Amino acid sequence: MLKLIKNGTIVTATDIYKAEILIEDGKITAIGTNLPAHGAEIVDAKGCYVFPGGIDPHTHLDMPFGGTITKDDFESGTIAAAFGGTTTVIDFCLTNKGIPLSQSIQTWHDKAKDKAVIDYGFHLMIGEMNNDVLKQLDGVINGEGITSFKVFMAYKNVLQADDETLFRTLIAAKELGALVMVHGENGDVIDYLTKKALEDGNTDPIYHALTRPPEVEGEATGRAATLTGLAGSQLYVVHVSCAEAVKKITEARNKGFNVWGETCPQYLVLDQTYLEKPNFEGAKYVWSPPLREKWNQDVLWNALKTGQLQTIGSDQCSFDFKGQKDLGRGDFTKIPNGGPIIEDRLSILFSEGVKKGRITLNQFVDITSTRIAKLFGLFPKKGTITVGADADLVIFDPNVKRTLSVEAHHMAVDYSAFEGMEVTGEPISVLVRGEFVVHNKKFVGTPGSGQYLKRAKYGMLRSSDQDERQTI
Amino acid sequence: MLKLIKNGTIVTATDIYKAEILIEDGKITAIGTNLPAHGAEIVDAKGCYVFPGGIDPHTHLDMPFGGTITKDDFESGTIAAAFGGTTTVIDFCLTNKGIPLSQSIQTWHDKAKDKAVIDYGFHLMIGEMNNDVLKQLDGVINGEGITSFKVFMAYKNVLQADDETLFRTLIAAKELGALVMVHGENGDVIDYLTKKALEDGNTDPIYHALTRPPEVEGEATGRAATLTGLAGSQLYVVHVSCAEAVKKITEARNKGFNVWGETCPQYLVLDQTYLEKPNFEGAKYVWSPPLREKWNQDVLWNALKTGQLQTIGSDQCSFDFKGQKDLGRGDFTKIPNGGPIIEDRLSILFSEGVKKGRITLNQFVDITSTRIAKLFGLFPKKGTITVGADADLVIFDPNVKRTLSVEAHHMAVDYSAFEGMEVTGEPISVLVRGEFVVHNKKFVGTPGSGQYLKRAKYGMLRSSDQDERQTI
Amino acid sequence: MLKLIKNGTIVTATDIYKAEILIEDGKITAIGTNLPAHGAEIVDAKGCYVFPGGIDPHTHLDMPFGGTITKDDFESGTIAAAFGGTTTVIDFCLTNKGIPLSQSIQTWHDKAKDKAVIDYGFHLMIGEMNNDVLKQLDGVINGEGITSFKVFMAYKNVLQADDETLFRTLIAAKELGALVMVHGENGDVIDYLTKKALEDGNTDPIYHALTRPPEVEGEATGRAATLTGLAGSQLYVVHVSCAEAVKKITEARNKGFNVWGETCPQYLVLDQTYLEKPNFEGAKYVWSPPLREKWNQDVLWNALKTGQLQTIGSDQCSFDFKGQKDLGRGDFTKIPNGGPIIEDRLSILFSEGVKKGRITLNQFVDITSTRIAKLFGLFPKKGTITVGADADLVIFDPNVKRTLSVEAHHMAVDYSAFEGMEVTGEPISVLVRGEFVVHNKKFVGTPGSGQYLKRAKYGMLRSSDQDERQTI
Amino acid sequence: MLKLIKNGTIVTATDIYKAEILIEDGKITAIGTNLPAHGAEIVDAKGCYVFPGGIDPHTHLDMPFGGTITKDDFESGTIAAAFGGTTTVIDFCLTNKGIPLSQSIQTWHDKAKDKAVIDYGFHLMIGEMNNDVLKQLDGVINGEGITSFKVFMAYKNVLQADDETLFRTLIAAKELGALVMVHGENGDVIDYLTKKALEDGNTDPIYHALTRPPEVEGEATGRAATLTGLAGSQLYVVHVSCAEAVKKITEARNKGFNVWGETCPQYLVLDQTYLEKPNFEGAKYVWSPPLREKWNQDVLWNALKTGQLQTIGSDQCSFDFKGQKDLGRGDFTKIPNGGPIIEDRLSILFSEGVKKGRITLNQFVDITSTRIAKLFGLFPKKGTITVGADADLVIFDPNVKRTLSVEAHHMAVDYSAFEGMEVTGEPISVLVRGEFVVHNKKFVGTPGSGQYLKRAKYGMLRSSDQDERQTI
Repeated sequence: MLKLIKNGTIVTATDIYKAEILIEDGKITAIGTNLPAHGAEIVDAKGCYVFPGGIDPHTHLDMPFGGTITKDDFESGTIAAAFGGTTTVIDFCLTNKGIPLSQSIQTWHDKAKDKAVIDYGFHLMIGEMNNDVLKQLDGVINGEGITSFKVFMAYKNVLQADDETLFRTLIAAKELGALVMVHGENGDVIDYLTKKALEDGNTDPIYHALTRPPEVEGEATGRAATLTGLAGSQLYVVHVSCAEAVKKITEARNKGFNVWGETCPQYLVLDQTYLEKPNFEGAKYVWSPPLREKWNQDVLWNALKTGQLQTIGSDQCSFDFKGQKDLGRGDFTKIPNGGPIIEDRLSILFSEGVKKGRITLNQFVDITSTRIAKLFGLFPKKGTITVGADADLVIFDPNVKRTLSVEAHHMAVDYSAFEGMEVTGEPISVLVRGEFVVHNKKFVGTPGSGQYLKRAKYGMLRSSDQDERQTI
Repeated sequence: MLKLIKNGTIVTATDIYKAEILIEDGKITAIGTNLPAHGAEIVDAKGCYVFPGGIDPHTHLDMPFGGTITKDDFESGTIAAAFGGTTTVIDFCLTNKGIPLSQSIQTWHDKAKDKAVIDYGFHLMIGEMNNDVLKQLDGVINGEGITSFKVFMAYKNVLQADDETLFRTLIAAKELGALVMVHGENGDVIDYLTKKALEDGNTDPIYHALTRPPEVEGEATGRAATLTGLAGSQLYVVHVSCAEAVKKITEARNKGFNVWGETCPQYLVLDQTYLEKPNFEGAKYVWSPPLREKWNQDVLWNALKTGQLQTIGSDQCSFDFKGQKDLGRGDFTKIPNGGPIIEDRLSILFSEGVKKGRITLNQFVDITSTRIAKLFGLFPKKGTITVGADADLVIFDPNVKRTLSVEAHHMAVDYSAFEGMEVTGEPISVLVRGEFVVHNKKFVGTPGSGQYLKRAKYGMLRSSDQDERQTI
Repeated sequence: MLKLIKNGTIVTATDIYKAEILIEDGKITAIGTNLPAHGAEIVDAKGCYVFPGGIDPHTHLDMPFGGTITKDDFESGTIAAAFGGTTTVIDFCLTNKGIPLSQSIQTWHDKAKDKAVIDYGFHLMIGEMNNDVLKQLDGVINGEGITSFKVFMAYKNVLQADDETLFRTLIAAKELGALVMVHGENGDVIDYLTKKALEDGNTDPIYHALTRPPEVEGEATGRAATLTGLAGSQLYVVHVSCAEAVKKITEARNKGFNVWGETCPQYLVLDQTYLEKPNFEGAKYVWSPPLREKWNQDVLWNALKTGQLQTIGSDQCSFDFKGQKDLGRGDFTKIPNGGPIIEDRLSILFSEGVKKGRITLNQFVDITSTRIAKLFGLFPKKGTITVGADADLVIFDPNVKRTLSVEAHHMAVDYSAFEGMEVTGEPISVLVRGEFVVHNKKFVGTPGSGQYLKRAKYGMLRSSDQDERQTI
Repeated sequence: MLKLIKNGTIVTATDIYKAEILIEDGKITAIGTNLPAHGAEIVDAKGCYVFPGGIDPHTHLDMPFGGTITKDDFESGTIAAAFGGTTTVIDFCLTNKGIPLSQSIQTWHDKAKDKAVIDYGFHLMIGEMNNDVLKQLDGVINGEGITSFKVFMAYKNVLQADDETLFRTLIAAKELGALVMVHGENGDVIDYLTKKALEDGNTDPIYHALTRPPEVEGEATGRAATLTGLAGSQLYVVHVSCAEAVKKITEARNKGFNVWGETCPQYLVLDQTYLEKPNFEGAKYVWSPPLREKWNQDVLWNALKTGQLQTIGSDQCSFDFKGQKDLGRGDFTKIPNGGPIIEDRLSILFSEGVKKGRITLNQFVDITSTRIAKLFGLFPKKGTITVGADADLVIFDPNVKRTLSVEAHHMAVDYSAFEGMEVTGEPISVLVRGEFVVHNKKFVGTPGSGQYLKRAKYGMLRSSDQDERQTI
């Protein structure tokens, strides 16, 4: 089965040019002008960019949190992702101390298997690190192809790991070829400040932000980076929200440490004042780290432009306003953290980033797809438009103007975090391995068609056809 | 006339994959597997990488300096460049106060026209900036396609411009769409220190380095960056040699200024002790800025890795040891500054950078070619391997081991700055616009076949087929 | 003739304690409790602090500027200084290229001799540095006791020196034992921006600030600091106004360079919005460097607290609003730069600094007197309260509340830069070498009674009784 | 009982001058020239400096550590201190979780009471912070006059407190008026690295240094500083050993945080290579933090000079080489940490600091005495030479040359950490509250004559005669 995409402008992390793309058996086999059609289905991309499918490195689908569970599961979540131009997600597999890792991973396979409409992989949460856990990691990496571990420095008494766990994980990751991801906030300080706020009767959503000041993010980020340098390991800081954390990452990179940073759309376009919305609406904007003072946005955009930060994830973690977010009325600590973003990640970055001249078109592709594929062992199978790669493609009209809203989006939640925001540009059609999942803005995919992705080790290419080489 | 390059591994600034390249009329028209040959000449690249041709953004060919003239002209210089995998050079056109810019440019055209075997463009030196000069710049940019200007902060009473000239040039460049290049050293301090050294009887080559300490480079670089920020303009700092200058560039970029930095192979692998070689041999290693203490090399490599610096130029400026360099016996200030590098730029960066794990293969391509093409208005005609681009290609064997030496190189000078250095990797064949210039390590080109390149404005694509867009 | 000061609280840069001070022949001979009176005149300082007399290291009295002349000369200026608690000034002696330095110094002696009511010394402006100037410096330092030189990096084509002059001056100062003072702003950039502003019809006082942005101060300050480090010399940056300059000074000090910084009361309490006052009143607030955005004040206060900056000068340079400042109506470049501050320096620092907890009482003394005496070769003759020191004393009531105004002050100008500002604390009586100049808020001094001060070399004690030692 | 000290040169943190000092009832009552003797005992200080007695803010006398106990108790320790010119120590009172603080303090009173020959106070270790501990702090501060608390970030599972304890202590200290002291090293990382070293068979003393790299000190110091800023509290970082920690302290101070830093003589003159001495002699040089690479010494000296660090403590914690240090043969983790320094603190700082031009004489006094008195609530009773202060005085001959050695020193241990080091300057006689403890280099004091010092709250003066005021 052949497809031939014509008339589009192909954009990769480096290139921008007009050419046709020939797809055979789900892979790209030729790019050129005047390619012979050989009876291929012709896809007209006139007036559109053709991007490699977005890769979302940071999602929480079907995840329990504080007595409730995220609204979007692997079906609604990946459908929404596809509408937004994302063709791969890497979701966080939670673990529990004392329970075999394989059991937790199986739980996550079960959540995804019959539901996902795009491809997916897993990161593994590390809550403790000892000889027993160490022994299981070989199977996790080489068997499951899970080559990234997540450590939480916050959520005291729940998810938080101590520095020894973080350090041991970094050392294990170095030896095994994995990438350590860190939620960088000082949980001890937050724990004190939140208790103090409640004692003082400060229960509104804004206190979520005020009890997690940027300094605690900068501190923890710097600590993790220092430990990474000492371990000679590699670190990926998730959801960087503020100047303090950018500074620490930059300092580490300038010293030659292998430290990478991700930010999220919400930190680029929303700010702390949203938590002060009346009628408890502030709860819709409760993320951890919290939204920051607006001036941080310029720092984050510039960090993407100069390469101090390298990727953008969604941190998709959606809860209904009614019935979930409102569990925290009268006690902000009970508001489930997170929001619905998986669908809007590329649209916001394109509209606010490329169209407003803050980043280039090539950077847009790199940040949302290519660099993520390289960091997480999916490249060049995923993350680029090149001969031999999976035909994960987004046909994107750069000129459409539209308004983000709960009515328009496909996530399962009852509000949009970007309600009323005008954006320019929209994914028209989206292909995963050569098959349409979204066609002319309509969902045409099949739950369960998404494939699980075993990922290469840190710094390695993911390809069956070639030797693995360093590529980061 | 068709060519089909088979069996190679194509490397761009983003991608690495096996595929065939079809060349028609000097341009790439298809990339794929099992492309139909249609009688094309088959070029076997088995076991080799196929890189986009290198672009050297910093050469001084056929240039007068201190009463002598560089040994390599546009013929020997571009032949040597081709052997080294470089298919485009951008040479510095000197100017003189009071003489029409068009006259200086014509001089440079005359130097290049019948000699160059690869394509070439010019940067223009700005020694003064006033209304008369301003009036001529429209023709320079839109007529000649010269979209980059060079200002010297050193060489007092010869080339040095004052801060007002630099600032006016930055403002003009912003308005006109040009990139300002700066030689960042404080010429006033150097002037004092060199006179003082001679007065004190310190005449050996090492005093060239000791009278141009890294602080004067850091200072001038920071000053130029500050002025760039104030002007809202764009700056490219040539031949960054030391940690002090890297720090200033990084600070500027982190503030959001459009500041870029180039380093050179000599700063990455040679160091200040070379100037102390006996028998006046230190003179061979006299560059400005001078070679630095060895620890700076780690800073420079990391700056390339993290993107604090973005390109590598050769600063090719070659003089014979006998008859030219030795003009400075007894007075280091009379040693002509510069050395022969144009041929070794890619080889050193590949061997010391990629093979030793300091940069990735994609970064190698970006640093030596793609980023340069983007910054200087040549992209995507030059600087990448993509459909529609000029077929400027290097077939590079990554496993050959060889020794750099005066006997082996093709530059016209009587010594090699890297004599005896073992490198891995070698360009086997080199094509410019689809024609071999070097074939199986033999020169097969024609003097005068190189074409002059009119370049797009700063931030614009260079292509007749497409609208120009921002691409930096 | 004896005086015995009783009941006061003595404050030095280190100490705070209650004791009596015995003065004989203008010097302090004993400090103790229950000292024998021996017929001394008793001075009751009950409820007051006794401070060492303030030293103002930065005044321009009787100075020509832009076709006019400062309103306060050595009589009105030093009377006002005395009312403000200042007992010594060091004034800037201007020079002209080609005129013997001795002639310029004599001019300044003539200005001061019969007028000053407090002691005074001179700094010497250096506009050029060559062998001829060098030869004269021995007499300046050893003959005149002038051990500090001022170099201007701004005022292009008027006072501005180039980097070579600055660097040569630093080297000469190191060898001769002098301190180099620098006005740190990039005059080339300012020159362009001011011309551009006038061309664009932007003539109001606010454009004085907008054409001298903080970046040009930071740049020049950093440049001077770098040159100081290279020369191994010593530098004192006058009138630091902004965060950018503080940062550069701090960086230099952290590298071990001998760099010191002064700020002024106006930068601590006024801000850029003052230049926007209607009816051309903004002209009253035209200083160079200009007043800055208000947030810089916190940076400056903290710099004084932590020792990043070490002194406070007035930069007294007063012009009437009518007849002088208004020369610049319609052209802000014609507004004479400077303002009347000499009287308010200590009052503002005490009220805004000590009373508001930003600096300690000991720091107040150090910043306004002791550190200045040490840096400029007057210590311990001046700058402290100790046995053997000149009895230059201020009896200061820390609880008086009053309002600064043109009616209340003693400067000769027709406005106050601090009109209406409420301050706490006031000098009640002021003694110079044991004699009252101000007694119970009344002037009782004699024009011409002030003595010229020959100063010790940089880093040396000023004392006839002891060997000179390093003291900075 | 009167004493009159004649012919000396008095040095304070600000002043240097010749005068006589009259002592009555243990206090200074007059300073002057030709003071009436009134039958006072005349003390001739000809050729000597008279310094305020040194204050050692950091001693561990009679302290259990790892199954053994420090060799010097309050008798031998304070006698040695006196010989070294120190007249006050503040010792660390250890506590245990669950045991009333008053009981721990009483233990420390018992250790000191009949033994100390100089005055002394206590700091209190905080190992946990909860409501029970909080309730006891009022008595500690207001009853016992203990106004400084120590938190350990290292010594995992022994002394180490978590971040919540540190943060709560900072907040309590702010509210109560105490100064928090911190041992800044990341104990989690050290714990891992030491276990790993032992596993790998790396048991020699040098591994003590290699398992506590400077990064872990920088990290913890920065973390503590960040928490201090968040709490709006005050912090004193003990025994700063390296550039990384200096940088963090400086950054915090530049942000306006109340953060102070102490270093110790060993870090200024010894380096990491000492741990490699053969025959297990490296054990003599085992401190925590460890000795560092030699280049850090320049950074520390400059930090003292510029005020980035403010004090010097000894961290006296002495163990015999035989019988104590050698417990760690075959396992460096069993070497008791610490060394004998209490006697050499001033001598080393004077000889290496003042005599070599790294700090001034005034800074010497400030760093070893005055600033410590101010920070820890002893000023002006202690820490200066002024009317009303305790007559704690050191008569110091600045020209004596001598050699530090185990034979010459008075500490109870069997080695000197500075064996063979030549120093210039020596305390000749030492007085505490007007009484000689050392007279002409002979001990003339009485065990038990030292008085316990209740200290003022942070930022307050310690004086019965005056109101308390802010003085830091």
